[in-house]
Amino acid sequence: MIMDTIGATAVRGVTTFGLDDLHASLSDPVLGSMTLLNEITGRFPNAVSFAAGRPFEEFYDPAQLHGHLERFRTHLELERGHSPEQVRTALFQYGHTKGLLTDLLVRHLAVDEGLDVLPESVVVTTGCQEAMILILRALRTGAEDVILAPAPTYVGFLGAARLMEMPVLPVAEGAGGIDVDDLVTQVRRARERGLRPRACYVVPDFANPSGLSMTLAARERLLDVAEGEEILLIEDNPYSLFNADGRRLPSLKSLDTTRRVVYLGSFAKTAFPGARVGYLVADQLVAGGRGPGDGPLLADQLAKLKSMLTLNTSTVSQAVIGGMLLANDCSMTRATEREARVYRRNLAAVLAGLERHFPAPSDGSRPQVTWNVPGGGMFAVLTLPFEADDTMLEYSASRFGVLWTPMRHFYAGGGGTHQIRLSFSVLTPALIDEGLARLAALVRDRTA
Amino acid sequence: MIMDTIGATAVRGVTTFGLDDLHASLSDPVLGSMTLLNEITGRFPNAVSFAAGRPFEEFYDPAQLHGHLERFRTHLELERGHSPEQVRTALFQYGHTKGLLTDLLVRHLAVDEGLDVLPESVVVTTGCQEAMILILRALRTGAEDVILAPAPTYVGFLGAARLMEMPVLPVAEGAGGIDVDDLVTQVRRARERGLRPRACYVVPDFANPSGLSMTLAARERLLDVAEGEEILLIEDNPYSLFNADGRRLPSLKSLDTTRRVVYLGSFAKTAFPGARVGYLVADQLVAGGRGPGDGPLLADQLAKLKSMLTLNTSTVSQAVIGGMLLANDCSMTRATEREARVYRRNLAAVLAGLERHFPAPSDGSRPQVTWNVPGGGMFAVLTLPFEADDTMLEYSASRFGVLWTPMRHFYAGGGGTHQIRLSFSVLTPALIDEGLARLAALVRDRTA
Repeated sequence: MIMDTIGATAVRGVTTFGLDDLHASLSDPVLGSMTLLNEITGRFPNAVSFAAGRPFEEFYDPAQLHGHLERFRTHLELERGHSPEQVRTALFQYGHTKGLLTDLLVRHLAVDEGLDVLPESVVVTTGCQEAMILILRALRTGAEDVILAPAPTYVGFLGAARLMEMPVLPVAEGAGGIDVDDLVTQVRRARERGLRPRACYVVPDFANPSGLSMTLAARERLLDVAEGEEILLIEDNPYSLFNADGRRLPSLKSLDTTRRVVYLGSFAKTAFPGARVGYLVADQLVAGGRGPGDGPLLADQLAKLKSMLTLNTSTVSQAVIGGMLLANDCSMTRATEREARVYRRNLAAVLAGLERHFPAPSDGSRPQVTWNVPGGGMFAVLTLPFEADDTMLEYSASRFGVLWTPMRHFYAGGGGTHQIRLSFSVLTPALIDEGLARLAALVRDRTA
Repeated sequence: MIMDTIGATAVRGVTTFGLDDLHASLSDPVLGSMTLLNEITGRFPNAVSFAAGRPFEEFYDPAQLHGHLERFRTHLELERGHSPEQVRTALFQYGHTKGLLTDLLVRHLAVDEGLDVLPESVVVTTGCQEAMILILRALRTGAEDVILAPAPTYVGFLGAARLMEMPVLPVAEGAGGIDVDDLVTQVRRARERGLRPRACYVVPDFANPSGLSMTLAARERLLDVAEGEEILLIEDNPYSLFNADGRRLPSLKSLDTTRRVVYLGSFAKTAFPGARVGYLVADQLVAGGRGPGDGPLLADQLAKLKSMLTLNTSTVSQAVIGGMLLANDCSMTRATEREARVYRRNLAAVLAGLERHFPAPSDGSRPQVTWNVPGGGMFAVLTLPFEADDTMLEYSASRFGVLWTPMRHFYAGGGGTHQIRLSFSVLTPALIDEGLARLAALVRDRTA
């Protein structure tokens, strides 16, 4: 009986838990998705991998870390007027919860995104993932609170929501990203069920996994709907610099006149993932709290949560990212010129290769394989004439030497059964061509 | 009406929340405690501060960061046989969730703690704070789950528990730390109320804030009780190296024969807080989960949670801490020899100064001010003949130029009203003497 109520029972003298003695998120496939995909990738090192959602790394060099660190140290001394003792404190001690980089991030957002943000509204986070956790924690006050997000959605957001016990209601996606009409429908339907929709999560530019982007009109409409329905928009923007044609659409935050948008920024793709530096901009007002740490902004509240989650973001990581910003006049567009060229080249190679390996039937009949045509980013989506699940991925890897990501992992409520995500960020045109040839062989095998 | 149900209402065209539209933890004084204390400290820069719970920083030097980074890079190449490309991937890319340092941490725990741990049971975390979040998230499965902890308790643990919505039931503390008899009482009382006690959090060596340590007999008894009551022990061990007399008692984990103890480690005091590198050891078995990422250990489950919280711990921070471990044959005792001497010197200065400034009444009457005599660490606790709240702290700072921490901040359920924590880690004997003289003046003023 005690064993039942406690959950930690001794098996042959060793403390043992059942999985159901642990938080329910641990039994959710979402939390295992990334691990599963990494495991398969690890087992087929010689396969061509369209699976890895990571940045191109050939331009990285460990020596850069020293240069960036030193540049940021000099910046603290010369531009911020720190004494050597203050530099030491900044680099080694517990620091301000909002971080060391808020001023540089304000400049970066002005330069790269045309955004004019309050320095006090910026919180540096342990990767964009922590920013998601913070906003989800803040908005989940009880069983009725829910978030909306287009299906498919980045698996890291779905996982963060599971950890914070925040239900994510799916919204349909069209060729231009989130279907704003369906968002209105889902918000109202949720309210009819007694739920309280708090926010909608969206990646307007080259979304992961769909590769889709919203038009300017759709962005404006989404803001209107958010205002009318009184929900927040959580804009996640890791890919916008990597447009294929050099044209940029304005971010939701730059169109936001009523502070409806919480903006999430990442350096995982523009600098490097290992640093685990991201940030959020939350300039919404919070009334009613004037205790310690209760500044007037939502950012102040999110910083309070952060002070109990990770305390600060690594000072060493912040210094490295700060040095990188300083080396590029705070323009990550400039910092990533070479990478952006690689991504453009690879996207072109993927689209050309798809045309070549999956030509339209000459008799005008329906093609077996179709795909979307992203305007940038790192991802494209293929629709196959058969189910593309983890078993098919295993078959594809072992028999044909090509890896990809089953889209179903990005649908919390089911979907994407016949679709796969092709990630092309770490490949070369030659490997892309070889990988698509192998994929074509798989399709021939499965449809013969 | 919509405004009521949504919680984000437009005030003069600006999205505005009420504090009660945000997670309840944000209305809890615990989350504001650190900020409040930092604010007061910031406003009185010339006060002698016994408030700062941070490591001595005079031995820090930014040049060390470069040395540690380079040493770890060389280690990857020469000792782990990484190619330059693999080094680049390890330092820049997304990495293994459990971290880059598990092997070095196993050596560190063997050298410094006499612990023999499975490498697979170790997870590197974004500071020890993330380790607390992970274990609290894992153990909170429903409304009946609770954790026990001695009162007073480290405010970061109380805050983490608030974020994870885990109630913390207080256990009495005696002169030797947690009162194990009261733990049994509280566990059973909780069960009678339909609650499910999952674990007890404890800092056996030189606890923050009390400075108290458990005897060997108390440690053994605590393990017996945990086994008998089938609860986990969460052992947090940031201070054990800083004993005053060079003698070490075994950690709970080193006495743990049935895997009852989840061990939390920190580099915030032994290396530096800014790195945000900590770790946990969780070698408990988990039965029933065999999906992706479901290894056999509790550490595997906690790593799954981490993969959705911060993904990895900063590779740059890990490299710096790794280099520091390598420079000292994985002995943080060796790495912190100079700091440990400072803490010993300062503890002696505090205890001698207290005797001098608060001498026992010559008539044998009861002394006005009493204190405990910690065997190491960074903290001592004084009991004053008047209430020591935030208002008194303000008075002390502005009138007498001395800062300290009201103990009441460490009692979630109330307590410590007449007690203050003296932190002496960043001071010198001269400043300690001056600070105690000022404190004595405050006591004279308040008892005149």
